[in-house]
Amino acid sequence: MTLTGHNYLGVRTGASGSKTFRAIDPARNADIDPPFHEATADEIDAAVKVAETAFIAYSARPSKDRAAFLTAIAGEIEAAGDALIQKAVEETALPAARITSERGRTTGQLRMFAALVEEGSWVDARIDHANPQRQPVPKPDVRRMLVPLGPVIVFGASNFPLAFSAAGGDTASALAAGCSVVIKAHPSHPATSELVMQAVVRAVRSTGMPEGVVSMLHGVDPQVSLALVRHPLAKAVGFTGSLRAGRALFDAAAARAEPIPVYAEMGSINPVFVLPRAVRERGAQIAEGLKNSMTLGVGQFCTNPGVIVGLDDEAMRGLVDRLSGLISAAPGGTMLNRNIGKGFSEGTRRLESTAGVRVAGRSSAATALPTHAAPVVFATTAQRFQEDHALREELFGPSTIVITGPSRRELETVAATLDGQLTATIHAAEGELQEYADLVAILRRKVGRLIINGYPTGVEVCPAMHHGGPYPATTDLRSTSVGTAAIERFARPMCYQDCPAAALPDELCDGNPRKIWRMVDGKFTKD
Amino acid sequence: MTLTGHNYLGVRTGASGSKTFRAIDPARNADIDPPFHEATADEIDAAVKVAETAFIAYSARPSKDRAAFLTAIAGEIEAAGDALIQKAVEETALPAARITSERGRTTGQLRMFAALVEEGSWVDARIDHANPQRQPVPKPDVRRMLVPLGPVIVFGASNFPLAFSAAGGDTASALAAGCSVVIKAHPSHPATSELVMQAVVRAVRSTGMPEGVVSMLHGVDPQVSLALVRHPLAKAVGFTGSLRAGRALFDAAAARAEPIPVYAEMGSINPVFVLPRAVRERGAQIAEGLKNSMTLGVGQFCTNPGVIVGLDDEAMRGLVDRLSGLISAAPGGTMLNRNIGKGFSEGTRRLESTAGVRVAGRSSAATALPTHAAPVVFATTAQRFQEDHALREELFGPSTIVITGPSRRELETVAATLDGQLTATIHAAEGELQEYADLVAILRRKVGRLIINGYPTGVEVCPAMHHGGPYPATTDLRSTSVGTAAIERFARPMCYQDCPAAALPDELCDGNPRKIWRMVDGKFTKD
Repeated sequence: MTLTGHNYLGVRTGASGSKTFRAIDPARNADIDPPFHEATADEIDAAVKVAETAFIAYSARPSKDRAAFLTAIAGEIEAAGDALIQKAVEETALPAARITSERGRTTGQLRMFAALVEEGSWVDARIDHANPQRQPVPKPDVRRMLVPLGPVIVFGASNFPLAFSAAGGDTASALAAGCSVVIKAHPSHPATSELVMQAVVRAVRSTGMPEGVVSMLHGVDPQVSLALVRHPLAKAVGFTGSLRAGRALFDAAAARAEPIPVYAEMGSINPVFVLPRAVRERGAQIAEGLKNSMTLGVGQFCTNPGVIVGLDDEAMRGLVDRLSGLISAAPGGTMLNRNIGKGFSEGTRRLESTAGVRVAGRSSAATALPTHAAPVVFATTAQRFQEDHALREELFGPSTIVITGPSRRELETVAATLDGQLTATIHAAEGELQEYADLVAILRRKVGRLIINGYPTGVEVCPAMHHGGPYPATTDLRSTSVGTAAIERFARPMCYQDCPAAALPDELCDGNPRKIWRMVDGKFTKD
Repeated sequence: MTLTGHNYLGVRTGASGSKTFRAIDPARNADIDPPFHEATADEIDAAVKVAETAFIAYSARPSKDRAAFLTAIAGEIEAAGDALIQKAVEETALPAARITSERGRTTGQLRMFAALVEEGSWVDARIDHANPQRQPVPKPDVRRMLVPLGPVIVFGASNFPLAFSAAGGDTASALAAGCSVVIKAHPSHPATSELVMQAVVRAVRSTGMPEGVVSMLHGVDPQVSLALVRHPLAKAVGFTGSLRAGRALFDAAAARAEPIPVYAEMGSINPVFVLPRAVRERGAQIAEGLKNSMTLGVGQFCTNPGVIVGLDDEAMRGLVDRLSGLISAAPGGTMLNRNIGKGFSEGTRRLESTAGVRVAGRSSAATALPTHAAPVVFATTAQRFQEDHALREELFGPSTIVITGPSRRELETVAATLDGQLTATIHAAEGELQEYADLVAILRRKVGRLIINGYPTGVEVCPAMHHGGPYPATTDLRSTSVGTAAIERFARPMCYQDCPAAALPDELCDGNPRKIWRMVDGKFTKD
């Protein structure tokens, strides 16, 4: 294992630029070697061009080859062993146990997509046979299936150095769809990213994939990211991060001569509504669950519960006291990097000085370094929440705001005030959801996922998962970044009319050689 | 049947503005009464607001109610009888037989979507059951399905006064998905649109739908269209028309505080590649087919074959001579309105004076009125086609450019030069597609539909149809505006985690009360 600090144009490394940056160890707030080379304009152009060349070869490979490649990446990531875990811990300050479990999720995703493309039904194949006798005009033979878009730009996320970074969900689903990928490594964990890229390179070689099927570029300058999105050969973008950065990429893509899809998963405050009977029945238990959810991973999850909403009654005051007590006793944490640490301390200071907002509880942990964070619970009224949009903005880190109001109607108004969200959660006693049916209806318009009597953190990877939601949760509410449906982001329908069997893909041939589910003459069948 | 010339805010008519416009009878180039009232800013706001209110009620109605509504619209359009046909003929100059067949397509689409939502599997329901015993963390119960987006803005298209206009494919698929609709009537056939809206109003009343589920606004000022797209309560846009107008709507939607999907189907030159053996075997027959395809509906189809590409050999020269002869003898036609007529005459004049482009054949039909058009065949070289981007822009109307080049490689270069297209067509003799496999591969990247030995006009309405394509053919290459998959444009996934059965939609309940196809624990099933 040798870190080069270089960019990867396919399997070849290079460092033509002179600008470099270093990651930090957030636990020590100290720089780490080696320096990483910012990609130059020429390297950006070259990376997308090799991705385009590789796409033509890679997208023509049979599904089993793509599946073997994804499986090989998973194996190579595991083979990278403890060195990868240790490097990720060093660059993120996340505990080894978390990184180890995240590695399992990462390799699990790669294998899930391998199984998905090997099975093959994801292409949504449809066949309508011809009817030459039809009057007044003959019916042609029409067949369609999903095909890959082309080179995809994937931005690594800071908060999941493995599962949503170099070979994370976006890369796995794009490769599964048949796209080539240019990874923009997150500058917060460039060495972890390079180790993963080295695993990808070994998998490219061992499975005989086109050498440019995956590239990796480094950079802290936003111009690197924008240049990638603006490259005419780029055909889609996957991103997880801040609203500001995600929107900038979306705007750049929309302004292109040829606009391209941008799947940016951005800010979410993931409101948790605690209904009054549920609070009376199990307020202490909910307080404990909320404490765990809001401090998990030092609050650095896109599904972190940023707002807790309930009626202003005695039971709710008890829940808030309990939660505040738990948070006051909670340990501090180390955040992923200096920017995130600074954002959290500035954001909490801003809330402290916001009219009508009080600190209900705060961890007494020391915050000696700029990367240190002390969990905190704020409290305010439904009225203030509606008046002040700043209270509805995501504050990334271990904080939450409790909002209380006098009536059910007020809770509905709070819900109606919310921007789009990845999730909303409702804690309800038996039959209480029916009483709050209007609240449920309002929340359904706002969110991608509605959780009952649970917590928003912890996103199951499965076919039914939807990790997405109305803007600003994402830039494309039709898409999910978790689960098998994530593959659909990087594909489009392609239709063949009266095409001879010899020129049709296997998925669309009579006899169903791929043995996939298809819609044939309007009926779902595997025949 | 009384035409009011008013805007419809749901079932109520109004005309608060003083600006009016009139449609013309293109066959006489004469204004038609009554005048139509441009929607005011207040009317635009009111229409989207009633659509939002209606959406909440309409989207909660069971699928069978939506199906009954769509079916009722189809019946009411038929009940409008000859008066509707005559009005559409008067406003478009399209023949009665064509309008009658288009009415059949329109009602067929409405009934197709009724059947689709009544059957119900389109919601792509997925269920992953819980596993409380799973280690290290329990697996939650996760279920997802597609839900409607909200109010949709539908722009009527000039060239399909029924099938892609007021109650055309966009409106039918949006209503089927559960969305409410604000129709911006095309100013080229406002009376036809009002008659269709009156049919919709009768269907709203007879089926007891929310009164604001469909509204209709008039306007010639682009600001009416932009204001609709910019309205914060609008959640998606369907459009068929010019690249310039479609891009303006896309840009407005992308610049919103909350960007929304825009499904704009725009320009396409639908290249037809005629391979040399096919030309030798049946050049005369292909020439006849091309003549019919390029003059159908006075060339006013988005799938009109605007470019014909072949080798510069004797057989191809024979095909061009034949086509030119047929076009020289072809009758003239009347275009849909003055703007389109002007665009065609200016465009053909521009091509005539373009270096390296010659007129190979032109109809001798008189063009006394600005709405008259004489079909024309231009010819140029592959070299010129590559050099001059203007030759690759759509010219709406009965014209085509024949491009010839010296070699197979040159045809591939022409294909590589093309922008995104709705369709490409290849005429090939037995085994010839395999010889031109590289050309096929290039075209697959460029188009939504590849037609073999046929013609691009005539778009079958069926589950396997894909009427879409890479930009600038559309602003969203993942979507189709024809066929059952068009419904997916107006829906998004919504996920429920650990939700009690009482709060789940029927589509996601155990026992499958809707009896739809679902993916349950990773397997497709109707159980």
